[in-house]
Amino acid sequence: MEKVGIHWSETERQRAGNTKTMKQYIGIDLGGTKILAGLFDEQMNCLERIKEKTGSKKAPEYVIPKILKSIDDLLSKAGLRTSDITAMGVGAPGSIDTLNGVVLFSPNLNWTQVPIVKMLNEKLPFPVLVENDCNVSTLAVHEMEYKSKPASMVGIFIGTGIGSGIVIDGKPYHGFNRTAGEIGHMVIASGGPKCGCGNSGCFEAVSSRKAIFREIKKAISKGETQFYKRANKVNKDLKSGDFRKAIAAGDKVTKRIVIAAARSIGIATGNIINLLCPEVIVFGGGIIQALEPVMMPVIAKTAQSYAMTGTAVGIKLAATHLGDDAGIIGATVMAKKFCKK
Amino acid sequence: MEKVGIHWSETERQRAGNTKTMKQYIGIDLGGTKILAGLFDEQMNCLERIKEKTGSKKAPEYVIPKILKSIDDLLSKAGLRTSDITAMGVGAPGSIDTLNGVVLFSPNLNWTQVPIVKMLNEKLPFPVLVENDCNVSTLAVHEMEYKSKPASMVGIFIGTGIGSGIVIDGKPYHGFNRTAGEIGHMVIASGGPKCGCGNSGCFEAVSSRKAIFREIKKAISKGETQFYKRANKVNKDLKSGDFRKAIAAGDKVTKRIVIAAARSIGIATGNIINLLCPEVIVFGGGIIQALEPVMMPVIAKTAQSYAMTGTAVGIKLAATHLGDDAGIIGATVMAKKFCKK
Repeated sequence: MEKVGIHWSETERQRAGNTKTMKQYIGIDLGGTKILAGLFDEQMNCLERIKEKTGSKKAPEYVIPKILKSIDDLLSKAGLRTSDITAMGVGAPGSIDTLNGVVLFSPNLNWTQVPIVKMLNEKLPFPVLVENDCNVSTLAVHEMEYKSKPASMVGIFIGTGIGSGIVIDGKPYHGFNRTAGEIGHMVIASGGPKCGCGNSGCFEAVSSRKAIFREIKKAISKGETQFYKRANKVNKDLKSGDFRKAIAAGDKVTKRIVIAAARSIGIATGNIINLLCPEVIVFGGGIIQALEPVMMPVIAKTAQSYAMTGTAVGIKLAATHLGDDAGIIGATVMAKKFCKK
Repeated sequence: MEKVGIHWSETERQRAGNTKTMKQYIGIDLGGTKILAGLFDEQMNCLERIKEKTGSKKAPEYVIPKILKSIDDLLSKAGLRTSDITAMGVGAPGSIDTLNGVVLFSPNLNWTQVPIVKMLNEKLPFPVLVENDCNVSTLAVHEMEYKSKPASMVGIFIGTGIGSGIVIDGKPYHGFNRTAGEIGHMVIASGGPKCGCGNSGCFEAVSSRKAIFREIKKAISKGETQFYKRANKVNKDLKSGDFRKAIAAGDKVTKRIVIAAARSIGIATGNIINLLCPEVIVFGGGIIQALEPVMMPVIAKTAQSYAMTGTAVGIKLAATHLGDDAGIIGATVMAKKFCKK
């Protein structure tokens, strides 16, 4: 799978194999559903990559061994040993104490106060850092797609939920409780749809995959669209790709719902411009990956119309093309930048 | 007028008069309605203070001479000369290029690209800095009311409009176009009341003095409240103090409307906690000054319920008590901190 910013070829693998004195790094993207692990060289070439299911048992005593197994598999695929690794970064969902290497609170993993770095360091001879998954993905985009290294940048990741990463003065911004970036729970439609968090009108409740899915289910039950019936998807958990297929097949109801979600993303983006005025706002996550051509023009136009005069001049809004690799790349960038061996 | 953080007494004036070798600073709060000028010593004692109307003619050729006159009056009241002043700061409404000393865009003054620092420097022998008015007010609170100097802080100023100042890493944050902090136009109630900016559902459209006034006018016209008729205020432009008086007199309609505005402020505050997680969020402006006891508990409770689990722990929410002096104090703090003579 070739991605922007990553060169992944047999030649690269051989080169890496031939130069064991080079520095190698590992990036882990730890999610509630899957664990992605990537092996990178100093030039950020991806040498190997592994995907594991996180599994239903999410307690650290089950998940940590899975991470260690991913690392083992990665190294044996590459013919390397742990001593060949300079440092490793982990992107994890939730609020993270990066200084002490602790996952403070992660609803996706059902973790509270898990000292992940200490637990990994007991088994690994190289330094490990942990950071919020949206922050590492934003860092990945910052380093790999924006060579000008913008001083300020916000990454908005729209999938089943919505999260964000904030870069200020060229580095991840965490805030007082290290929880900054919970953009999915910025209220933009007070009194609007119920959110999973218990409140209503959150950005996530109007623009996430869950929100689009909810509106499509309503439309199906009202008989407004026949597409999902024809596609035998009526009682399925619809994915971002299903929405794309529906629009490609000319389903106007799905298009209307997706465009309404894009408008809300544009309003949220206008909020970010008015409040933080970052140089770059980048969009990622499953929904954007699947629906970029339909959504991005609507997002940009809406954001522009909600931004105050003069606030949006020269600000770049764009989708990232790092795709699923943003997490492992960002975790590796962090390991390279901030780990001292 | 005694204010928290400012000592203003005859003794101080005499002390200042006796120690002309001390460093003195001037802070200017340039508003669309009035110009406040304050003279401060090194210890941030306010030695003198002047208030001028900005006047209806707001072009720089009218306003700059008014600022210069304020400075003259201030100095002659204190028996000082321009050579006794170390530096001066100006807080101005709108987006400001602090590096080049230019007011980029100010709707309140109807200014575009006004090189205010250059214009003042032509007449004044001491260095001058200019900064956004909400940023200087936030800086004032940061320096004078929070001696611990929190790393991150947001000041939310609720008056006729709503603005904010952001402090990150202990210094004002400006963003790419130097326009950061336009919190009044953060949409929190998409599809809600029309805002002066042309959009709808902005924070300013639901929580500012204008928004409260609009709701009270509606209630008056529906005959829901008789208070304003009795007070002979029906066709008047109601001020924050009028709302306070109505509530003090037991007018339940005003209380309901003010509490609804406070709830919206709480939602906006929850957004700030979720997004930026600053150590301190401070509230100022005419509405808060007049209605703190009614509004602050509602703001705090609502913000808490909209903040995600763990994000609000230990964050301080409080009203500033610097009042009208926040602008001149903050402008002076800036002059002291950042001006090199």
